[in-house]
Amino acid sequence: MLEHITETTLLLDEAKCRQNIAMMADKAARNNIRLRPHFKTHQSAQVGDWFREQGTTGITVSSLKMARYFAAHGWNDILVAIPVNIRDMALVNELAARIQLHVVAVNIETVEALAHQLQHPVNVWLKIDTGYHRTGILPHSHEELDQIVALMEKNDKLRFTGVLAHDGHTYKQTDKEVIRTIHHTTVFLLHLVRDRYKARFPELLISIGDTPSCSILETISGVDEIRPGNYVFYDLTQQHIGSCTFEQIAVCMACPVIAKHPERNEIIVHGGSVHFSKDNLVQADGSELFGRVVELSESGWSAPLQGIELVSLSQEHGTVRASNDLFDRYKIGDLLGILPIHSCLTADLMKGYVTLDGKHLEHLSGVPVPEQNVL
Amino acid sequence: MLEHITETTLLLDEAKCRQNIAMMADKAARNNIRLRPHFKTHQSAQVGDWFREQGTTGITVSSLKMARYFAAHGWNDILVAIPVNIRDMALVNELAARIQLHVVAVNIETVEALAHQLQHPVNVWLKIDTGYHRTGILPHSHEELDQIVALMEKNDKLRFTGVLAHDGHTYKQTDKEVIRTIHHTTVFLLHLVRDRYKARFPELLISIGDTPSCSILETISGVDEIRPGNYVFYDLTQQHIGSCTFEQIAVCMACPVIAKHPERNEIIVHGGSVHFSKDNLVQADGSELFGRVVELSESGWSAPLQGIELVSLSQEHGTVRASNDLFDRYKIGDLLGILPIHSCLTADLMKGYVTLDGKHLEHLSGVPVPEQNVL
Repeated sequence: MLEHITETTLLLDEAKCRQNIAMMADKAARNNIRLRPHFKTHQSAQVGDWFREQGTTGITVSSLKMARYFAAHGWNDILVAIPVNIRDMALVNELAARIQLHVVAVNIETVEALAHQLQHPVNVWLKIDTGYHRTGILPHSHEELDQIVALMEKNDKLRFTGVLAHDGHTYKQTDKEVIRTIHHTTVFLLHLVRDRYKARFPELLISIGDTPSCSILETISGVDEIRPGNYVFYDLTQQHIGSCTFEQIAVCMACPVIAKHPERNEIIVHGGSVHFSKDNLVQADGSELFGRVVELSESGWSAPLQGIELVSLSQEHGTVRASNDLFDRYKIGDLLGILPIHSCLTADLMKGYVTLDGKHLEHLSGVPVPEQNVL
Repeated sequence: MLEHITETTLLLDEAKCRQNIAMMADKAARNNIRLRPHFKTHQSAQVGDWFREQGTTGITVSSLKMARYFAAHGWNDILVAIPVNIRDMALVNELAARIQLHVVAVNIETVEALAHQLQHPVNVWLKIDTGYHRTGILPHSHEELDQIVALMEKNDKLRFTGVLAHDGHTYKQTDKEVIRTIHHTTVFLLHLVRDRYKARFPELLISIGDTPSCSILETISGVDEIRPGNYVFYDLTQQHIGSCTFEQIAVCMACPVIAKHPERNEIIVHGGSVHFSKDNLVQADGSELFGRVVELSESGWSAPLQGIELVSLSQEHGTVRASNDLFDRYKIGDLLGILPIHSCLTADLMKGYVTLDGKHLEHLSGVPVPEQNVL
């Protein structure tokens, strides 16, 4: 298969990916929790099918456009986990007419716009800021929460469904105990908010979302639903956090070697910021890491090699620095395997995947815009 | 026009863009130098037409795939300014059969592969590393240079056309005198290499490429060709370097406001790293800047507002921090205009443009793969 790869390609190890999907499905089942996986990492109809085969029925996405794509591929229960964009109410209504649509509200203005313009019922989740401080209502903002809940209570299109949070701050941690503490704090705060409205809305659900917590915790309690996403592929960031092993990383870039510089032990690959994204990991010595090199074979790839790393990126070029031995191992025209720092962004840029048996899988970003608009 | 924008959109001010195109064409004409603009910034057939209208006949691209795209749009003289990927020799031959193809060689292995596998003549440029240290042959590597030149001399498919450099190190500078010194050093070094082979190849050309040098220098001498690209749009990085004014920046993101956080004066827009890229500018205080906010109107956008900036990005969200006054000016559902840090990467991610009069222009990254494969 590798001999047919002529240009920078994102390889997908289907077996590893299916194992990751099964691992989280099993964990959710064991904990008696609903799994609503986030599809923003893979954004692929075909990878979505692998989730379906393992029992997934409800999913999470990060834009209305992504909701439209997966609705067109037969998903009927979709949570759009970003504050709803009220400029795109036509698409909200189009989706709400067709599927069980869940939206996230973080302010009264959005809920008022929904109340005025919705033509079909939607499920509304209140997003609570439990410490990440990107978006969400603070758990003690009772006045704002009460106003929104009152508005939902009197509007038959707005079904107050639950409270949710995204612990984005776990992505900056590498200590499992810190991640556990963040998780338990979030669950505690979501319970506070739910309890305030439980008498009036006895069915309210609690949903949390981050891959680090969902990966590290074996026992998950106090929530009805989890929404991790990155675990479908994992990446070097998640390995660094401690969410996964190198062996669980299910995607790998294959980059042609286009130049070698023996005077500085640098190998140049065709693979730049338009392929990998500029996301990086800061190393102990302060240097930036853009990817780790693995040995490619027909059956997949090895663990990361020691002494060879992707150390910088420009638009189309990647610079790999290598020890003497490894520098000599690769020649012009070879393919270098490189594990990505952030699989979500790399997949979005690569616009598709090639599996180890040569199948091409799509990514929403590679789907032509006219086809995206078909629901 | 703005009222029809429902989602995150890349606006293009055609008048500014055409002025930028004309400015560099005039400068090249005034200096009696050929302009071979780099099309990797816009990657758009329609923007390419604006260059054609101003007399451009030869272009530069950064991948074989981009060469195929522009060849399919009628460009017959294309330089692929990245060391040629010998795994993709089928495409090299396909292009060489159709157009006047120029490739870049940086090592003997690549030139040997070309010598063995080319079916049609190509123009070969030797890339010289004049100080950027990304790729290229060092000017004093006489043995390597001599070997490559000897190989070209005895092969009728390899037309030794010239020596070129890319001063990528000017992008880290903000002092015009430093940029001039880098430029003059590069021209001097390219002359040294050319002079070594001038007797045997009297037609050898010298080509340089970076936008900072080509923008800052009014008089350009000692080179036959310039290959700047980013100037078609410019961006905040080029403004920071001193290559352009804010007024010359021809692209601007329009992002819907989806949340506001009065407790920390933060406005959340739908516009994240999948729209902008993670490129940023480090400010004097060490903080990272991801974009500057402008006031949008039907006729374009204002200069950057003071006291409001895009300060962080996650996959789909952007966080804008604002002074009290500016925080109050924007409401949920408004469109925020944001100038990008790096227009090449933003355009690549946005996959297309909307002009101020509502025309949709394509970007190669938004063109379906089957259509890309048509030559």
